[in-house]
Amino acid sequence: MIVIMKKFARDEQIEGVVKKISELGFVSHVSKGSERTVIGVVGEFSKDKLKIDPLSLLSMENGVETVYRVSKPYKLASIENRPEPTTVYVDGVAIGEGKFTVIAGPCSVENHHQMITTTKGVKSAGAKLLRGGAYKPRTNPYTFQGLGEEGLKLLKESKELTGLPIVTEVMNPKDLDLVLEYADVLQIGARSIQNFALLKLVGQTTKPVLLKRGMSTTIEELLMSAEYVMSEGNANVILCERGIRTFETATRNTLDISAVPVLKKLTHLPVIIDPSHAAGKRDYVPALSKAAIAVGADGLIIEVHYKPEIAISDASQQLTIPEFENLMKDLKKIAQVLGKEM
Amino acid sequence: MIVIMKKFARDEQIEGVVKKISELGFVSHVSKGSERTVIGVVGEFSKDKLKIDPLSLLSMENGVETVYRVSKPYKLASIENRPEPTTVYVDGVAIGEGKFTVIAGPCSVENHHQMITTTKGVKSAGAKLLRGGAYKPRTNPYTFQGLGEEGLKLLKESKELTGLPIVTEVMNPKDLDLVLEYADVLQIGARSIQNFALLKLVGQTTKPVLLKRGMSTTIEELLMSAEYVMSEGNANVILCERGIRTFETATRNTLDISAVPVLKKLTHLPVIIDPSHAAGKRDYVPALSKAAIAVGADGLIIEVHYKPEIAISDASQQLTIPEFENLMKDLKKIAQVLGKEM
Amino acid sequence: MIVIMKKFARDEQIEGVVKKISELGFVSHVSKGSERTVIGVVGEFSKDKLKIDPLSLLSMENGVETVYRVSKPYKLASIENRPEPTTVYVDGVAIGEGKFTVIAGPCSVENHHQMITTTKGVKSAGAKLLRGGAYKPRTNPYTFQGLGEEGLKLLKESKELTGLPIVTEVMNPKDLDLVLEYADVLQIGARSIQNFALLKLVGQTTKPVLLKRGMSTTIEELLMSAEYVMSEGNANVILCERGIRTFETATRNTLDISAVPVLKKLTHLPVIIDPSHAAGKRDYVPALSKAAIAVGADGLIIEVHYKPEIAISDASQQLTIPEFENLMKDLKKIAQVLGKEM
Amino acid sequence: MIVIMKKFARDEQIEGVVKKISELGFVSHVSKGSERTVIGVVGEFSKDKLKIDPLSLLSMENGVETVYRVSKPYKLASIENRPEPTTVYVDGVAIGEGKFTVIAGPCSVENHHQMITTTKGVKSAGAKLLRGGAYKPRTNPYTFQGLGEEGLKLLKESKELTGLPIVTEVMNPKDLDLVLEYADVLQIGARSIQNFALLKLVGQTTKPVLLKRGMSTTIEELLMSAEYVMSEGNANVILCERGIRTFETATRNTLDISAVPVLKKLTHLPVIIDPSHAAGKRDYVPALSKAAIAVGADGLIIEVHYKPEIAISDASQQLTIPEFENLMKDLKKIAQVLGKEM
Repeated sequence: MIVIMKKFARDEQIEGVVKKISELGFVSHVSKGSERTVIGVVGEFSKDKLKIDPLSLLSMENGVETVYRVSKPYKLASIENRPEPTTVYVDGVAIGEGKFTVIAGPCSVENHHQMITTTKGVKSAGAKLLRGGAYKPRTNPYTFQGLGEEGLKLLKESKELTGLPIVTEVMNPKDLDLVLEYADVLQIGARSIQNFALLKLVGQTTKPVLLKRGMSTTIEELLMSAEYVMSEGNANVILCERGIRTFETATRNTLDISAVPVLKKLTHLPVIIDPSHAAGKRDYVPALSKAAIAVGADGLIIEVHYKPEIAISDASQQLTIPEFENLMKDLKKIAQVLGKEM
Repeated sequence: MIVIMKKFARDEQIEGVVKKISELGFVSHVSKGSERTVIGVVGEFSKDKLKIDPLSLLSMENGVETVYRVSKPYKLASIENRPEPTTVYVDGVAIGEGKFTVIAGPCSVENHHQMITTTKGVKSAGAKLLRGGAYKPRTNPYTFQGLGEEGLKLLKESKELTGLPIVTEVMNPKDLDLVLEYADVLQIGARSIQNFALLKLVGQTTKPVLLKRGMSTTIEELLMSAEYVMSEGNANVILCERGIRTFETATRNTLDISAVPVLKKLTHLPVIIDPSHAAGKRDYVPALSKAAIAVGADGLIIEVHYKPEIAISDASQQLTIPEFENLMKDLKKIAQVLGKEM
Repeated sequence: MIVIMKKFARDEQIEGVVKKISELGFVSHVSKGSERTVIGVVGEFSKDKLKIDPLSLLSMENGVETVYRVSKPYKLASIENRPEPTTVYVDGVAIGEGKFTVIAGPCSVENHHQMITTTKGVKSAGAKLLRGGAYKPRTNPYTFQGLGEEGLKLLKESKELTGLPIVTEVMNPKDLDLVLEYADVLQIGARSIQNFALLKLVGQTTKPVLLKRGMSTTIEELLMSAEYVMSEGNANVILCERGIRTFETATRNTLDISAVPVLKKLTHLPVIIDPSHAAGKRDYVPALSKAAIAVGADGLIIEVHYKPEIAISDASQQLTIPEFENLMKDLKKIAQVLGKEM
Repeated sequence: MIVIMKKFARDEQIEGVVKKISELGFVSHVSKGSERTVIGVVGEFSKDKLKIDPLSLLSMENGVETVYRVSKPYKLASIENRPEPTTVYVDGVAIGEGKFTVIAGPCSVENHHQMITTTKGVKSAGAKLLRGGAYKPRTNPYTFQGLGEEGLKLLKESKELTGLPIVTEVMNPKDLDLVLEYADVLQIGARSIQNFALLKLVGQTTKPVLLKRGMSTTIEELLMSAEYVMSEGNANVILCERGIRTFETATRNTLDISAVPVLKKLTHLPVIIDPSHAAGKRDYVPALSKAAIAVGADGLIIEVHYKPEIAISDASQQLTIPEFENLMKDLKKIAQVLGKEM
């Protein structure tokens, strides 16, 4: 940390801060300028020391203007910890550097016919994993909340038919055991990104975890949530940018496409994009998907429905199967010139 | 709902929409303008119909430009449902219209001495309820996560000594039974505002629920989360504005003070303000607290610590007891001219 | 417009609104539902009628809940007005559908050597126009404000040497005549996007105008600003997305990449992207540039400096010439598979 | 400035940075930690040195992770420059510490009757200055743009009748001379907050300047804009918070009430609040006005119209005269207990 003293802070104030730093178990390096003094705080944070927040405490000492944190608050997720990119394997399907892996399927699992038709469609167009929600986080308590276990069974049936591994959301700790029986990837939704109890639980499993950034989660907070999972022992984390909340209402959310190159500098974990929730409108999904591959994402999670006009949820943002087929053709052309395997 | 057709939409498109509306169980009123046709959709939504989202489906019909929802998606929380303001009672303490009720206490429950000293201090200054976290949602997995049950016991001890009822957060459904044994008000934190499983569970209890708006939750979504609790049978909901996330970084969050008069127009539920998390800095807390009473809030939840400079969490935003005493004096003067009881 | 009456609005309130609509020169279509009445307001807005804001007035009538505007507030810029895409020509260089036109050059014009070296570099790598600021909008009054006319002369010299037409910013109406002598495209910066006096003035010229979206300008407001220019007679407007201000601080701004497909649905005007100001860091510029071409933008405006480490402004976001050359090679490959001419 | 080197930066990288700092005319203080080296950069910035941006240049050196600025970029506006609060005097009316000064009047100057009636009304209720727009910045080019000089004359007439000094907006540098003949306070609107040419011009006058924060202007940027005015010689600057743009749409803007205590810590300039543009709806204006006085603002600028239902602009946010009278009574009561003179 760096402690910036106020202009013309008195000597006893500087000494007070140095003393506090020492009490907290760190070492000070004092730089006196013509107007201001700056104090570098060094030393390894032990697990025990981190239990209190030295930044917050130091910022309260007399004469202190600001305290900056220098070290990153995440460790296992950081690129310093592991400079080579991580590839996450799901039933033999690789997600990571050099690949562009497409996860597709409906918003909600609705019924047998919907699942079979849609899964066959996305598989034949080149999707490598199947998505579909059996437990649905809905803002409105009076709307469809998912089929639950019946939905999980329909996902399994679709997997048996096509071989596509299953990506599905778990929202409630008490559903985790059941979801683990069916899912190949545990999805943590945007609304659960700081449900720390849930993050710890999925961190205690060995299943890959797909972590969707929240609507107002910073990139650093996303990595802290990944750290929650990893610190429990599960290193198979896939990050997903799905749009953030801004003042612009022309799209459901604002896709923060820059998050991809930013994350690639900070972490070794794979990063994919969800263009469907970002756009909120089917018409914009293909353009955003092409932007995703070009910007360097490792894949997509995309909503496709064999017949969106009868979908129970998110009808307006799901692609039809022919639309998805056309998009996949375009993506494959771009993948080729970028040297990505699809 | 109102369906706005595209400019010069063809007759068969208009007929298609009318047919769809009828299939969904509603009645159409068609207004043909010189350029555009507008279709009013009327009829009571049955619980069953709401399971699908007619707005989303209609927006996909050919020739449709936009669909507006007219009815509010929350019912029980709405002022139309109950025009007179609700007062929530906690162990004889009233929160609601005509009162200004102050909840105070430390960020985290740390130890016996801290709790006793702080509780006595806030009680004697006029606080009516005690706050304190035994389970702490922390962005960083390596920081203090709360004392858990030991913390709950310390809260109980403080209550026994002072009579102040307890407001404390529950984050994890599996802790609910334990928290229920100790808490007088169940706090749902900003990060759990769309943890729908948790909302349903607290809705099945009879304890008052303090619902903190999330960092990027709209006012309408906050009311939808209240609706989750109320639709399970628990009508004792207190709403809390605690700052939203914006581009401004001078404060920890941006206190959306306007949320108070807006909520007063939309709902009968009491609304309080948390100036501590909004400001993030002790110095700004008194000013924001005075704004809260003047704007029409029904109370405050405010962080106070007998010695913030050794606090384990949020050290920089907790008031000292003398600061809190001064603030309470100022608030009482304002309360008097506004005709509010404190 | 659509007027939504409050639940159970009384008949005389409905009649009052109908009367007001009639006074404003419009025709009403009333739809009575079981709970609510909805009134469609139709009729062509004459220039005179628009001088007052009927939406605002109607929203004040007794019994009115909300008023929605149905017509778009921009006309000339709208795709309904001109369904085929506009191509803007600058000295024979086309910007529009089917092309991907790259504008490159330094942030600020600094001196002869910088300009000649940089211009030759970007030209040989494939840039089609030259950018460079002679008048610089700087947040800090004590920093470099641009060379003014001397800068314009250096731009002209660079153009004479390489043939690249000049894109440069005009900030102050009183500089317009001078800038017109040198510029081939008048750039309106993000901070001037609602400088309506300036917009009207450039609208009275015949030079192409490059309109940069402001940090908190909605897509609709951007089109309204284009309308200011076009309504004065100048239809040669190029729109530019350059990042919006959000809570995320990892990048200078948040590139709203979705603005491209959204704008393509709403307007016939060409749309380009400025990845340099969005990113604020050189490292992220190539990834965002590739996203721009893939998402369907018609070009880029990008900061390149022959030696960024001595640049007077925006040093950290300007590409070196070799970095720009590599990027152009990648962009050409993507252009080819997308069928875009570069 | 503080330069944070990357973890394990090599010695020659550290030396390179130290050399660069020396070339830029500053002195280095190097603190080597176990993992990282931190370099304090000290020395007075001369006007000449500031012409380039040393922060940006240093951030590009090899081995550098981040550079923090320690000094504030504004000088004259800072509280360090002038610790006692500034009072701005307008024709004998004081705006500053210890007062609560209300500026009231219509959004737009419309006609003689409107102005006379409204001005008399606000004067008799206790307003100390008159507001009214003769030049209106309108997002839509087809709406009413203000009466121009005719409007200024109507303002003058109202002043002659009531003695209330005039606050009115100047948008275009070419109108400044004319506006100066009539205005007592020059208002710079939110959309002009970074119109640096205009800021410099009003800085060259001796008239008080009312500076409205832009929709996405940070508090620091607002102070930088004040610095533009002050650095030209005009120290009579009044700051105005009027709401910022966020994701919340229930109000026209989100009033950042915390800006008041934050500004009071950073600057000696008076700070007022515009509740009308923040709220966008009349109903919320009284509550926000009371919050403004309680939070410590030095005054209000508020829209009042003798008959809002026929107002040409902003009809829905202007108070009627009786509403304004009631509000003033409430404000006076609060002023009294807070020890503020109204």
